[in-house]
Amino acid sequence: MSKILLIHGPNLNLLGSRQTDVYGSVSSESIVADLQKQFPNHQIQYFQSNSEAELVDTIQNAKQKFDGIVINAGAYSHTSIAIADALRSVNMPSIAVHISNIYKRESFRHTDLVGEACKGAIVGLGVAGYALALEHLTENF
Amino acid sequence: MSKILLIHGPNLNLLGSRQTDVYGSVSSESIVADLQKQFPNHQIQYFQSNSEAELVDTIQNAKQKFDGIVINAGAYSHTSIAIADALRSVNMPSIAVHISNIYKRESFRHTDLVGEACKGAIVGLGVAGYALALEHLTENF
Amino acid sequence: MSKILLIHGPNLNLLGSRQTDVYGSVSSESIVADLQKQFPNHQIQYFQSNSEAELVDTIQNAKQKFDGIVINAGAYSHTSIAIADALRSVNMPSIAVHISNIYKRESFRHTDLVGEACKGAIVGLGVAGYALALEHLTENF
Amino acid sequence: MSKILLIHGPNLNLLGSRQTDVYGSVSSESIVADLQKQFPNHQIQYFQSNSEAELVDTIQNAKQKFDGIVINAGAYSHTSIAIADALRSVNMPSIAVHISNIYKRESFRHTDLVGEACKGAIVGLGVAGYALALEHLTENF
Amino acid sequence: MSKILLIHGPNLNLLGSRQTDVYGSVSSESIVADLQKQFPNHQIQYFQSNSEAELVDTIQNAKQKFDGIVINAGAYSHTSIAIADALRSVNMPSIAVHISNIYKRESFRHTDLVGEACKGAIVGLGVAGYALALEHLTENF
Amino acid sequence: MSKILLIHGPNLNLLGSRQTDVYGSVSSESIVADLQKQFPNHQIQYFQSNSEAELVDTIQNAKQKFDGIVINAGAYSHTSIAIADALRSVNMPSIAVHISNIYKRESFRHTDLVGEACKGAIVGLGVAGYALALEHLTENF
Amino acid sequence: MSKILLIHGPNLNLLGSRQTDVYGSVSSESIVADLQKQFPNHQIQYFQSNSEAELVDTIQNAKQKFDGIVINAGAYSHTSIAIADALRSVNMPSIAVHISNIYKRESFRHTDLVGEACKGAIVGLGVAGYALALEHLTENF
Amino acid sequence: MSKILLIHGPNLNLLGSRQTDVYGSVSSESIVADLQKQFPNHQIQYFQSNSEAELVDTIQNAKQKFDGIVINAGAYSHTSIAIADALRSVNMPSIAVHISNIYKRESFRHTDLVGEACKGAIVGLGVAGYALALEHLTENF
Amino acid sequence: MSKILLIHGPNLNLLGSRQTDVYGSVSSESIVADLQKQFPNHQIQYFQSNSEAELVDTIQNAKQKFDGIVINAGAYSHTSIAIADALRSVNMPSIAVHISNIYKRESFRHTDLVGEACKGAIVGLGVAGYALALEHLTENF
Amino acid sequence: MSKILLIHGPNLNLLGSRQTDVYGSVSSESIVADLQKQFPNHQIQYFQSNSEAELVDTIQNAKQKFDGIVINAGAYSHTSIAIADALRSVNMPSIAVHISNIYKRESFRHTDLVGEACKGAIVGLGVAGYALALEHLTENF
Amino acid sequence: MSKILLIHGPNLNLLGSRQTDVYGSVSSESIVADLQKQFPNHQIQYFQSNSEAELVDTIQNAKQKFDGIVINAGAYSHTSIAIADALRSVNMPSIAVHISNIYKRESFRHTDLVGEACKGAIVGLGVAGYALALEHLTENF
Amino acid sequence: MSKILLIHGPNLNLLGSRQTDVYGSVSSESIVADLQKQFPNHQIQYFQSNSEAELVDTIQNAKQKFDGIVINAGAYSHTSIAIADALRSVNMPSIAVHISNIYKRESFRHTDLVGEACKGAIVGLGVAGYALALEHLTENF
Repeated sequence: MSKILLIHGPNLNLLGSRQTDVYGSVSSESIVADLQKQFPNHQIQYFQSNSEAELVDTIQNAKQKFDGIVINAGAYSHTSIAIADALRSVNMPSIAVHISNIYKRESFRHTDLVGEACKGAIVGLGVAGYALALEHLTENF
Repeated sequence: MSKILLIHGPNLNLLGSRQTDVYGSVSSESIVADLQKQFPNHQIQYFQSNSEAELVDTIQNAKQKFDGIVINAGAYSHTSIAIADALRSVNMPSIAVHISNIYKRESFRHTDLVGEACKGAIVGLGVAGYALALEHLTENF
Repeated sequence: MSKILLIHGPNLNLLGSRQTDVYGSVSSESIVADLQKQFPNHQIQYFQSNSEAELVDTIQNAKQKFDGIVINAGAYSHTSIAIADALRSVNMPSIAVHISNIYKRESFRHTDLVGEACKGAIVGLGVAGYALALEHLTENF
Repeated sequence: MSKILLIHGPNLNLLGSRQTDVYGSVSSESIVADLQKQFPNHQIQYFQSNSEAELVDTIQNAKQKFDGIVINAGAYSHTSIAIADALRSVNMPSIAVHISNIYKRESFRHTDLVGEACKGAIVGLGVAGYALALEHLTENF
Repeated sequence: MSKILLIHGPNLNLLGSRQTDVYGSVSSESIVADLQKQFPNHQIQYFQSNSEAELVDTIQNAKQKFDGIVINAGAYSHTSIAIADALRSVNMPSIAVHISNIYKRESFRHTDLVGEACKGAIVGLGVAGYALALEHLTENF
Repeated sequence: MSKILLIHGPNLNLLGSRQTDVYGSVSSESIVADLQKQFPNHQIQYFQSNSEAELVDTIQNAKQKFDGIVINAGAYSHTSIAIADALRSVNMPSIAVHISNIYKRESFRHTDLVGEACKGAIVGLGVAGYALALEHLTENF
Repeated sequence: MSKILLIHGPNLNLLGSRQTDVYGSVSSESIVADLQKQFPNHQIQYFQSNSEAELVDTIQNAKQKFDGIVINAGAYSHTSIAIADALRSVNMPSIAVHISNIYKRESFRHTDLVGEACKGAIVGLGVAGYALALEHLTENF
Repeated sequence: MSKILLIHGPNLNLLGSRQTDVYGSVSSESIVADLQKQFPNHQIQYFQSNSEAELVDTIQNAKQKFDGIVINAGAYSHTSIAIADALRSVNMPSIAVHISNIYKRESFRHTDLVGEACKGAIVGLGVAGYALALEHLTENF
Repeated sequence: MSKILLIHGPNLNLLGSRQTDVYGSVSSESIVADLQKQFPNHQIQYFQSNSEAELVDTIQNAKQKFDGIVINAGAYSHTSIAIADALRSVNMPSIAVHISNIYKRESFRHTDLVGEACKGAIVGLGVAGYALALEHLTENF
Repeated sequence: MSKILLIHGPNLNLLGSRQTDVYGSVSSESIVADLQKQFPNHQIQYFQSNSEAELVDTIQNAKQKFDGIVINAGAYSHTSIAIADALRSVNMPSIAVHISNIYKRESFRHTDLVGEACKGAIVGLGVAGYALALEHLTENF
Repeated sequence: MSKILLIHGPNLNLLGSRQTDVYGSVSSESIVADLQKQFPNHQIQYFQSNSEAELVDTIQNAKQKFDGIVINAGAYSHTSIAIADALRSVNMPSIAVHISNIYKRESFRHTDLVGEACKGAIVGLGVAGYALALEHLTENF
Repeated sequence: MSKILLIHGPNLNLLGSRQTDVYGSVSSESIVADLQKQFPNHQIQYFQSNSEAELVDTIQNAKQKFDGIVINAGAYSHTSIAIADALRSVNMPSIAVHISNIYKRESFRHTDLVGEACKGAIVGLGVAGYALALEHLTENF
């Protein structure tokens, strides 16, 4: 049984309740509950923060406690060298997820510094992207 | 009686005591006290943080508690997609204020991501810009 | 009693009758009349032209006749070094106003050469921006 | 039972036999066979071409015959407006797959015109990305 | 009696049946039939291909068989130096046609390599642009 | 019988007498006379000005008096947001005409702000472009 | 005896009275009077306008009346293709003059569209640049 | 005795008959015949196509049949990642040839994606470049 | 005896244990201990945070407590206007240190916003850069 | 009697004998002789070098020996920060001269680093530019 | 018997002894000796300098003494307008050689100002490029 | 006892006597004398040249005679690939020094090609930077 850390960046705590046209109407809690059901043999830990620092801290500490990371860093995906460096530092299996297709949105969302530091990324498949990321991670441990 | 949240970003806690040639010699406390006097029928809450995360948190939570936001995000105005996304998420009446005329300063201060996410912006009118922003907000509730 | 010159650039003579989704349905005449009512102790002179030259002329001549300038240079805001130079030449109290939030529109409207030459700018607050600009000007004479 | 079209662009016919350090050692035939086993209730059709025109033709014709498209357009991902337009024209469920993490390679591979025209993209998860794409497609018919 | 070659690039075989909001609901066959009726004294040959190579071949061979070319190279208008070079090589009377106003669409459609290699271009006048192009060509033989 | 306004921008009053290698040797008067002959059932009004303001004025006033506009804004095509805004404001049927193929000339002539604000543009077909534009306009009233 | 037209663009009517740190304290009238004294055998005509159109008109009409042009187009030097095209159209001996060294000022003053259309330019030598330009013109008739 | 594949891209089938001022008056057939004479101990196979796909196919298949490649990809030199990737895939001795000096021509011909994927390039030496390339290839087998 | 604040930004808490090929194998604790030994007459305080806000706070508060600052802001060096503004606000003697030669790494590490706000920077000399910075600071009090 | 140093940069030793279509057919010797005749009360020293270093040396040493500098730095005008720094160091009266109108030539000749470091520049007036420069210098000692 | 000048720019005197992984282990002396053997009927003169000025001088003087130039200007290839201008001035048969494939190296080595001024260039074929250049030159005298 | 070569580039021979506001009032001789006193056990050789070539020569020859290099290449720091290549060729311990903080000056001084080729750089610490560089070099032999 592996342990996966699911990380959400800024404003993703509002998932399901706001801007539902862009991000859908499913809450983070519901996403995590569904994932845990889909992956009963794996332990999923959820962490959300609006703080770049807490995201860096959490990634650094994940090394000892988790087997892999699924991260949707939200707005920080496009600007945070610090989070990307943290992922490079722990050098764990990690996948970036974007709920919306970032290539169809504002140009400042086209850069993916965090995705560059992960093994890969799943983009635009809605909240279903999380399950695909978990599936891939757990099959490759 | 409406409730307005006045938000200050990084380094604006030093207002009035440092770089007075750029930002003037009035402190934030004094600004808030003056505003409260000018707008006796409205309740003004002041929040300052050097933390992008706390600013995002505060904006997210403002929805339930306040009728409008006046924000001077300081240096984060030019770099924070996260704060701009928070403003888009809560979708409240909000106005950005810049004490100095950012168009006359370094080119990295010409981009206004936060102003783009507000209804509009008041730029370069010194600390008087806050009262104008409040006036506009309260007249449009 | 001070005298304020309110200047409108190209196509703003159509204000209130066309593209009302962007600029609102209030005419310039109505704006000026309202402003004069709001500021009974100040004399407001209105000038509109589609001509860059007439705008430059008017700014140059304002020095002797007016105490301050409120200017919405319309499309010329983004392209006219000549109008900006005229403002620098007279070196009078002046504020730029944009009815719409120019940061949310085409990228060629993001540059504000005229706002750079004024004390500051009020952006995106609709026609209410004019009263705020007047208020600021008259309080700082 | 749905029918899925798996499309490979230029040089992907060499998959498994060349540049195995970048693309792995699994051949396209093997990938398709494995996918068919994993998705026994769906019919997977494979099409590869080095021709931009044949890829456009195939996408245009897919509308009548298939329920969804999984496409790795290879080098054309970064340059072909024609393939992206074909995808927009048929407006079918479609997912772009990139075997390698294109963000870590030459800058001319960072643009994803084809991914922009699909629902989303799976990037950098190796050949396993195909199964994830199929899984997502088939679950959303 | 002159002979005109009307060339359509990628995805224009779908004209009239897809994305009718952008390109209208008239099919290529109908366009050609109408043009032949409008220009009874001229022979109009229609050629469509999704293949850049076939378009280059067809332009090269047009020299011996046709008096002029009307070309809507679709997506290749913006990327194909090869088609533009073919037009320069045959050096025949030629006009580029764009059904939609490319200046109002994505920035990658603003470059017109094919139009640069023709005598001129007719942009945004819908399928009526073809008749205007033919009219100009046939009047200038 | 419709009424068409034909507008010429700066330096086009010199048409036919100067730089005839670029613009041909036909004068504006001759062009208008020929057009009136070709379109006897329509009334063509000609207006030329070197003044951006007069061009804006004329476009604004065209709404009440004319059914459509054909405009060659000359050098202002590449720089005038004001003229483009005037065209957007009146929202009349309008077509931009360029005598020369602007794509083959200096790079500062490649941008077509005015063409972007019209229905479309006819580029590089010499003075014959005017008749084609008129033909299109009058057929679509 | 030759006739020279000295043309001043926008805001140069204020020469000598404003921003004297940049442009010096000599008025245009004084400059012209001095030049006429220095060049008693030549007739110097002075024309100033803040209007791009009047500058274009004046240049167009100069052909019949003058032997050469000295032009300081002020702010229009950096933005006016129309004035540059007028100079190309009349194809007369002409020299651009800039009082200040434009290379040391804001980057938007580094482009010299008008100087590109003249024979050459004299930059940064103060008002003395006019006499040098006249000297060169008159010696080369 | 080695076997060399000489590949020509789009429009090079017209070599010798069109645009002879740029490309000279020697035909491809003549070039190949001359090369075969100059290199009697090597077998030269000639392949030309206007099709990017056929060029990719031919390069892929060259691995088994040839010892080296000389390629002038014409217009595709500047745009085709697919051809460059094919060359990287086969990893054979290969040299790019450009008849004209591409640095002296339009800026879109300055990028050489194909040359970057070859061992090196011979630029601007006319058709003589082919013999030099062959000489280098055959001496280094 | 002076007091120096040594500040470390994000991920530098991992110094010595991860990515040792880039950053070396010496821990922060060891660095501080060594520095204290080398500078027995000065008091060195160490502060590390992954939080931009805490770094801003710490710099603001350093004014009263310290005589100088040595700062390696890590990833924030390249993106944080807020930290740079804090340094400008306190206006204390400060030196930026980069362990690796940032000019040899990814282009997004070439910008040094923090170094621009300090007196100067020591780049690429490994952890030895700290002692040099301290030496310079202490000699210039 | 003042002493003027006339400096010529690389390839200007060939003046008058090569590329006479661009630079004219007057030699440097002849230019200097003519200038000495025109300015009999001033002593003109000529120095030419193809060496950036010798040009820097000569400028540095000019301080003690000369009253002013006229410099045509040729190709180095566009690339040499060192020559510009030397001019800034000696801080003498200096004028840059360009024989041809650099704005009409290749874009790499549009930057004028040397002219930026002089008082001003005379551009495109042929070899006559030297006399004008001397005239200005000598009148302003 | 013709005379060829082989010119080497900066750091190429170290050829064969340093950075042999990039430039190979053959010295310049050996290259020249080998070339002289390969071309016994031609006289090869070798000149190397680290000085841009000496390279310019040598090219200027080559006109009288040599029939052609082969030049590897090293680092100056990418920055020296002066050397390129010297080559344009003498207008002799000349070929640029680059030992390594400059397109595969740092982006500042992709510009080839010297190659633009020569007839053509041979890139990336190692030291064998010199013989090919000589062969081409001598066959075209 | 090690031997260090201290290299100064263009205009640094004027150190201490000119532009003292930027570079201080200490002469090079004084700097070297002070350094020799500070490092009595090491032999410091000083070399200054305004010549890029002599700087390249000196670096090349330093290999045999010196143990390390401290280099302030002045203006050449920002433009000379040749000096950077020389440093790469000798591959000796080397440190770049900039007296002023180049990040605070003109943008053309922000690029540091020479610092990129050294181990690291010391920026903005005045002439004290030399001693720090020496200290680092000598401690790491």
